[in-house]
Amino acid sequence: MPRTWRIEAKRDASARPVRVVLFGLGPIGVLAGKLVHSKECLEIVGAIDIDPKKVGKDVGELLGTAKVGVVVSDRVTETLTAAKADIAVQTTSSHMPNVGPQLADIIATGTNIVSSTEELLYPYLQSSEIGDEIDKLAKEHGVTVLGTGVNPGFVMDTLALVTTFACREVRSIRVTRVVDAATRRGPLQRKVGAGMAPEEFRCEVEAGRMGHVGLVESIAFLASGLGWAVDRIEEQIEPVVADASVKTDYFDVRPGQVKGIHQTGAGWVKGEKVIEMDLLMCMAPDEPGDRIQVSGDPDMDIRICGGTPGDVATPAALVNAIPRVLAAAPGLVTMKDISLPSVLAAGRMRIEGRAGG
Amino acid sequence: MPRTWRIEAKRDASARPVRVVLFGLGPIGVLAGKLVHSKECLEIVGAIDIDPKKVGKDVGELLGTAKVGVVVSDRVTETLTAAKADIAVQTTSSHMPNVGPQLADIIATGTNIVSSTEELLYPYLQSSEIGDEIDKLAKEHGVTVLGTGVNPGFVMDTLALVTTFACREVRSIRVTRVVDAATRRGPLQRKVGAGMAPEEFRCEVEAGRMGHVGLVESIAFLASGLGWAVDRIEEQIEPVVADASVKTDYFDVRPGQVKGIHQTGAGWVKGEKVIEMDLLMCMAPDEPGDRIQVSGDPDMDIRICGGTPGDVATPAALVNAIPRVLAAAPGLVTMKDISLPSVLAAGRMRIEGRAGG
Repeated sequence: MPRTWRIEAKRDASARPVRVVLFGLGPIGVLAGKLVHSKECLEIVGAIDIDPKKVGKDVGELLGTAKVGVVVSDRVTETLTAAKADIAVQTTSSHMPNVGPQLADIIATGTNIVSSTEELLYPYLQSSEIGDEIDKLAKEHGVTVLGTGVNPGFVMDTLALVTTFACREVRSIRVTRVVDAATRRGPLQRKVGAGMAPEEFRCEVEAGRMGHVGLVESIAFLASGLGWAVDRIEEQIEPVVADASVKTDYFDVRPGQVKGIHQTGAGWVKGEKVIEMDLLMCMAPDEPGDRIQVSGDPDMDIRICGGTPGDVATPAALVNAIPRVLAAAPGLVTMKDISLPSVLAAGRMRIEGRAGG
Repeated sequence: MPRTWRIEAKRDASARPVRVVLFGLGPIGVLAGKLVHSKECLEIVGAIDIDPKKVGKDVGELLGTAKVGVVVSDRVTETLTAAKADIAVQTTSSHMPNVGPQLADIIATGTNIVSSTEELLYPYLQSSEIGDEIDKLAKEHGVTVLGTGVNPGFVMDTLALVTTFACREVRSIRVTRVVDAATRRGPLQRKVGAGMAPEEFRCEVEAGRMGHVGLVESIAFLASGLGWAVDRIEEQIEPVVADASVKTDYFDVRPGQVKGIHQTGAGWVKGEKVIEMDLLMCMAPDEPGDRIQVSGDPDMDIRICGGTPGDVATPAALVNAIPRVLAAAPGLVTMKDISLPSVLAAGRMRIEGRAGG
């Protein structure tokens, strides 16, 4: 005889949707916007982009949805002030120096921020001063700023850190991620160097125009979460050269051309390599998937079979983080400062007042 | 040429160790105590047990460590008050009605609590009134109470919920856990029914004296985190009967006798099974391991290869949760209310004053 329980659902009828402004309407911004639009508990109340081809249009035109009744504007302060938004979903650039002034403008209107800026995952590695300034500003205005995504933001850092909860002790962590770029959107295929000559690839890397942004931030985030005084973080980026033709919807890679990128990083404590990250993004790799190996007591060996598709999961992470950001203490926070990240709960959510209508 | 970064470690020289009282010195309490004792950032300042064989002894004798300088007492209020503890690690019983009065006594001394009580993982399923009362008391005294462990507490619930962060939408979740009881401590082998006659096993189950406690709480916790109005939770417990002899250090199971337990649970929303849990704990199963399968957008399929050893991981989870409990808002909280769980960070931790010295 099975035992049976019943639980009452507690719904908060008085809750209102969270008011969201989309800041940036590139591929990730559009995907995040579509997701916001589809959720009962969220409402698009503003949209900002500098592209003249987008400004003036109803945001629904860009999202591929019905008319939303929100017109895309290039005026940041005006739009945010009028929108009385709870939060901005900011998706404009990977780098702190580019987004710093944008974040400051958003914060000044009393609006919380969830950002896809890769370097924000751990802002104190490369842009410590900008990070400190944003943190100070956010505290002054009583708002919270978080950088997240699927990578960086989840697979190679947050999930790895959570895995250690089962351990008495951790000695080292190795994370590997293998992404089949052939199944991803065109810009990602370009990002991994598809079709380039190996020399051209190396020049682009040297010039800082190529490579996944955030790997070293994932390392720094993990080290910070583990309380490890990492004295050196190193990163290396190499092309993966095709030995046979690979054809996708976007590219036709010939033998000898680049079919992907192999990016590795490591963190050392007193000369010992304690964090290792290995990211392979290429056309038709042997076995796509993610793996987290914790060497400790006990060892933990976690595999995400088939991997985590970034094109879907990054906008999901941004949107799923919204209630956690709204509930977090003011300041520039990281994924380890918010309460347990998870998919947006069904139904309306209670918003603990601060900004908004 | 690899790119290189250096990060400065921020150590807080003024931080003091967290003052911990061990409440309960059974197998889990002793393992948790050993771990507390081994950590620079934690200090045992009191020990409580009702067993006359333990009372009066230095706690180090029970932990198998050097003398700690703390004598085991059976006086709760007196010990906690004198110890000026920040937190009690409470490991006495699986069931809310048993621990309710103990929690109340601890809370009354202004001490935070991390507990291995399985039903506390989601206290509102079976003991909603006790849960409400503890929550009220904890808020009155400005302390935080959390129930955690490896299962319930991590593998089948918290980790499953975190996995959904990568999803735009979740339709259903299935979690399976296969534990090789032959590698576990004697009491666990007894707990899974090793060597029993199947009829005796069924009688024990009917009498509520047998079975893993917490599976239905894991379901309720997940449902609550997902915002799902689960209208029915069901649980079933069956013996696994040996078809060949199995011998361990503790038991000698003959064919026809019970070699383990197969416990399943499910949660339904409007007649649809949306959460499934399958727990097999037996001698020498085919393939020990944990698996979380999220059906959604995208699907997620996570495997913990080889599984998560509960004897090590449950005390680890209790101790690792300490800083999160100290930092959480007062009240009876669950794993989704604390900030990202992870292994105890190296070094001293800053304690945001409340209770303690």
